[in-house]
Amino acid sequence: MPPRLSGKINHMKTIKITAPATVANLVCGFDILGMALNDPQDVMELTILDEPIISIQHTDGYGLSEITEQNVAGVALQALLEAYNKPAGFEVKIHKTIMPGSGLGSSAASSAGAAVAANKLLDNYFTNEQLVQFAMNGEKLASGVKHADNISPCIYGGITLIRSIHPLDIIPLSSPPLFVTVVHPQIEVKTSDSRQILRKEVQLKDAIKQWGNIACLVTGFLKEDYDLISRSLEDVIIEPVRSILIPGFDDVKKQCKEAGALGGGISGSGPSIFMFNKDEQTAIQIKNIMEDVYTKLGVDYRVYVTTVNKEGVKVVGSDEL
Amino acid sequence: MPPRLSGKINHMKTIKITAPATVANLVCGFDILGMALNDPQDVMELTILDEPIISIQHTDGYGLSEITEQNVAGVALQALLEAYNKPAGFEVKIHKTIMPGSGLGSSAASSAGAAVAANKLLDNYFTNEQLVQFAMNGEKLASGVKHADNISPCIYGGITLIRSIHPLDIIPLSSPPLFVTVVHPQIEVKTSDSRQILRKEVQLKDAIKQWGNIACLVTGFLKEDYDLISRSLEDVIIEPVRSILIPGFDDVKKQCKEAGALGGGISGSGPSIFMFNKDEQTAIQIKNIMEDVYTKLGVDYRVYVTTVNKEGVKVVGSDEL
Repeated sequence: MPPRLSGKINHMKTIKITAPATVANLVCGFDILGMALNDPQDVMELTILDEPIISIQHTDGYGLSEITEQNVAGVALQALLEAYNKPAGFEVKIHKTIMPGSGLGSSAASSAGAAVAANKLLDNYFTNEQLVQFAMNGEKLASGVKHADNISPCIYGGITLIRSIHPLDIIPLSSPPLFVTVVHPQIEVKTSDSRQILRKEVQLKDAIKQWGNIACLVTGFLKEDYDLISRSLEDVIIEPVRSILIPGFDDVKKQCKEAGALGGGISGSGPSIFMFNKDEQTAIQIKNIMEDVYTKLGVDYRVYVTTVNKEGVKVVGSDEL
Repeated sequence: MPPRLSGKINHMKTIKITAPATVANLVCGFDILGMALNDPQDVMELTILDEPIISIQHTDGYGLSEITEQNVAGVALQALLEAYNKPAGFEVKIHKTIMPGSGLGSSAASSAGAAVAANKLLDNYFTNEQLVQFAMNGEKLASGVKHADNISPCIYGGITLIRSIHPLDIIPLSSPPLFVTVVHPQIEVKTSDSRQILRKEVQLKDAIKQWGNIACLVTGFLKEDYDLISRSLEDVIIEPVRSILIPGFDDVKKQCKEAGALGGGISGSGPSIFMFNKDEQTAIQIKNIMEDVYTKLGVDYRVYVTTVNKEGVKVVGSDEL
């Protein structure tokens, strides 16, 4: 018989979850769009404790801090426990495969994964929206800004639209089948740096172009119109500035589009680049192009051919199963 | 037997059409969204001629120019005939009920109505996209800018999204049943003036809010989600500036939302104000509020309780029928 907390029956003491990589922005949707991927994914194991302790262990060798206040999963769990208001704690084991600094929502996977797993151990005490709030503390620690464009798809799965952060307003979107090719050139681009180089003001005419594209991209997803998705994958505001930080970006984009990719761009703040494709065969061709560009540039890289993850953080094991 | 032109069989010599009023922008969709209304509508009669003459007659008493080059229908027909490249001309009678300067797409109704009617008389020689191009010449004459946010819904009907003007990319959107209340306070706001007062640069953070709202408004239409439509009807960029030109605007908006309207704002560049409603009963209450505000202000007004027009310019008679 597992011990009980505060008179509530806890069905599980230990849970194992996977947390997907995510692509924020999706070209023209800066700060409002995000998408979960089936590959790569982190694995985490959480055990609930009677005492208000958070203990974090990384088994991935990325050298991330295991001090609660300096760990994105740690601060997410702190926020969750503060709202829970009953004595509880967690022992956390994190095995990341989403590389920190890749622009593929590595910090979001840790903080969202921790929040969702903890909530399962607390018998779903919190709503998904509350979990997003807790997990955003991890984003604040990682990048200085409480943003939800990686956290939301990581928790909800699929493609999510964020109308507003205050109050939180998240809308999950349907989409047609999409194959996604991602390349992570292994150079360092810090989210905080890549935010600072953005201009605080934009031309009204550019903003109009951008909101025409974002409205049409969302329409393309909902109407399952691949051509419209392709035409709308254009960013006249963020990409021209941020892409400068990513060697090979223009080549990758140009060659991939010529080879039949629907379109794509910087994943989050980079350096990863993603491309949408209608079929797997094209997605594989796109992978070859990406490999070719970075091999020629002499830059190490990882590359993924994957699909949209529809489930978000997922339970893959527990002491109950 | 009607005479033949250039060897082609012309089924009709004379045609009568209605052209709907339109609401451009729809709050957060500046320059990219527009919607056709069932009331008010203009009536036009066109007769095809063998000679390259355009003759225009207004029967509405608004004092609009009947000189081809100075009439929005005239310049639209000139552009159409130039592209037709065979000898033809039109005799045009226009009876407007959409008041010029109302912000309800009066110029668009004339130019789009003329282009569509002429095309019917030419056995649908042109595509709808081409008709939009011709009709935009009327908008250029009226406001100095070739914009399509009134022209598109006037021709296609319903709600239309414009991703881009060059090249023209128009996407018709579905929507749930919506009742629309419109008030036209009879003050003068020129489209050209109301464009000039807009700032050329906007804050990036405001632009992000705006594209979050526009993406969600479009999603609300497509998913038939009234709550999402309501939450997304917010404009942080254009409305705060333009609404200053419209007496009573803040009162109308506040009171209408309190009374249950989904939301709304300035129609095009104003001075008309529109409100979306879920049912007719609310739409009528909203009309009473609008009447009350402008009666108290001592400003003359017209008010309409109507629905979204799904057909656009419509043939209501011909010498064939």
